[in-house]
Amino acid sequence: MPSQPFSGVLVPVLTPFTPNGEPDAGRFVSFCRWLLDQGAGGLAIFGTTSEANSMSPAERMELLDRLIEAGIPAEKLMPGTGACAMTDATTLVRHAVGHGCGGVLMLPPFYYKGVSDDGIFAFISSVIDRVGSPTLRLFLYHIPPMAVVEFSLDLVGRLITAYPETVVGLKDSSGDWSNTAALLERFPGFAVFPGSEVFLLDGLRKGAVGCITASGNVNVPGIKTVYDNWRGPQAEALQAEITTLRKALQAYPMVPALKRIVAHYHNDPNWAAVRPPLVPLDPAQSAALIADLGKLGFTLGERLQAKAA
Amino acid sequence: MPSQPFSGVLVPVLTPFTPNGEPDAGRFVSFCRWLLDQGAGGLAIFGTTSEANSMSPAERMELLDRLIEAGIPAEKLMPGTGACAMTDATTLVRHAVGHGCGGVLMLPPFYYKGVSDDGIFAFISSVIDRVGSPTLRLFLYHIPPMAVVEFSLDLVGRLITAYPETVVGLKDSSGDWSNTAALLERFPGFAVFPGSEVFLLDGLRKGAVGCITASGNVNVPGIKTVYDNWRGPQAEALQAEITTLRKALQAYPMVPALKRIVAHYHNDPNWAAVRPPLVPLDPAQSAALIADLGKLGFTLGERLQAKAA
Repeated sequence: MPSQPFSGVLVPVLTPFTPNGEPDAGRFVSFCRWLLDQGAGGLAIFGTTSEANSMSPAERMELLDRLIEAGIPAEKLMPGTGACAMTDATTLVRHAVGHGCGGVLMLPPFYYKGVSDDGIFAFISSVIDRVGSPTLRLFLYHIPPMAVVEFSLDLVGRLITAYPETVVGLKDSSGDWSNTAALLERFPGFAVFPGSEVFLLDGLRKGAVGCITASGNVNVPGIKTVYDNWRGPQAEALQAEITTLRKALQAYPMVPALKRIVAHYHNDPNWAAVRPPLVPLDPAQSAALIADLGKLGFTLGERLQAKAA
Repeated sequence: MPSQPFSGVLVPVLTPFTPNGEPDAGRFVSFCRWLLDQGAGGLAIFGTTSEANSMSPAERMELLDRLIEAGIPAEKLMPGTGACAMTDATTLVRHAVGHGCGGVLMLPPFYYKGVSDDGIFAFISSVIDRVGSPTLRLFLYHIPPMAVVEFSLDLVGRLITAYPETVVGLKDSSGDWSNTAALLERFPGFAVFPGSEVFLLDGLRKGAVGCITASGNVNVPGIKTVYDNWRGPQAEALQAEITTLRKALQAYPMVPALKRIVAHYHNDPNWAAVRPPLVPLDPAQSAALIADLGKLGFTLGERLQAKAA
């Protein structure tokens, strides 16, 4: 099988914005470093949780430049490079490869709906061919709830066959365990990451190499405990614990909720800012969220506060 | 009511690509000129039919520059300036305003699904405020089949109230006549364009100012005949004729079909190229399409051949 450098808990890193709505590179670098210190196996920057599609390609590339300049190891980075235009996607992939990133995470083109597998294949294929780099490691990003356009099982197979050294994995954010299971069964050795830690233990038992999950932004250690102990007697109990937290988070709009948590536990209100079309939690939602976390024992809070101090 | 310069048959202009997949500015300029010569009331370049979201912002701006340099009147242009990132949308709107374009056509941000009216309002509002031009005339682009994200009637009302001199119209590509009718009833004087000529006569009778329609790329004269004679005794018969052609086109994937028609009747095979994720018609589909048009009397073909000669 082709080499790919990622395993464990990968985090689609939240992107902080300044009060003026600009990407905040300073806070971003600090937060990425903190996540790695917490044990993240990789940083899937510029994903859905990162509000990547709410940033221009130039803004995304500038943030990546700043991470690299700050010494964040490129091999730990899996930037999202999806775009509706193959030219934008090519620019983003080329930039990531130029920095030596461990991989890139690629959405299908998501404006046109009802497109054929042939059309999506042609898009991905064009980007790979235009970049033309033997070091490119491309992970497909399957997220029908947002992209609507999908990587079908057949299409995944075609891409692996056409680009065995390049198309090395997939993040499955379908929320549909049967799809994740089918990918793991059909493509042994292909690096499948469930898009939620709810499926982490089940995934690992079937050959998944980790997960890429939004809640990693606030719970790397908890999720990593499942990853580190999935063969052990406590695996089910540990999984139940992280699932409980995940379900609590899912009661709120995920990105604003995660940013509110970071803002609260790091005592840094600026972190709550989101870019339109997302909107921040209102005060009542914020209070309810923090109260919900409190009921789960403040474990998360203590962890974050200790690190932020 | 605020001034807005568009009426009649507006065409979301097809974008030609070279065999290498690059936007073909030369063919684009010629085609835009031909459409205006045919009587188009305006050119809604960079719409869905234009594969605009399959081009980078830089590619779109380059094509607009070339149109202006070639002497296409800016006041006839309504470039699509939609993007998922408010920074990209701002760049595109500012560029169009800088050229003195008659207006811009603005998608909602279309990556995140299930977003609130507040979030979409904040997005459009941010772009308008960042551009900060009194000459901007912004048309909302409501196309749920592609964008999924919608401009609800309430949101349209909020935007008109907040920006009465700027938010002056809407293209309704919902395909839902009841939505078009509701817009016309609720916002008199607001420039509503049905997104298909199928609703042209019904729309004009309720106050629409024209239509913006993909099939305008191959049938401006026919559609314009309805626009010019909608109060006359032949209106229903003329509408039936253009509806028949539209329905024939709709039997095929619209953008590849329109490009195939242009390629065929202009004897210019390069025109058939599309960018991924769209795919060209296969030979059987192409033959069937041309045969279907033949059964409708070759009117279209003669018209285009005469102009292309």
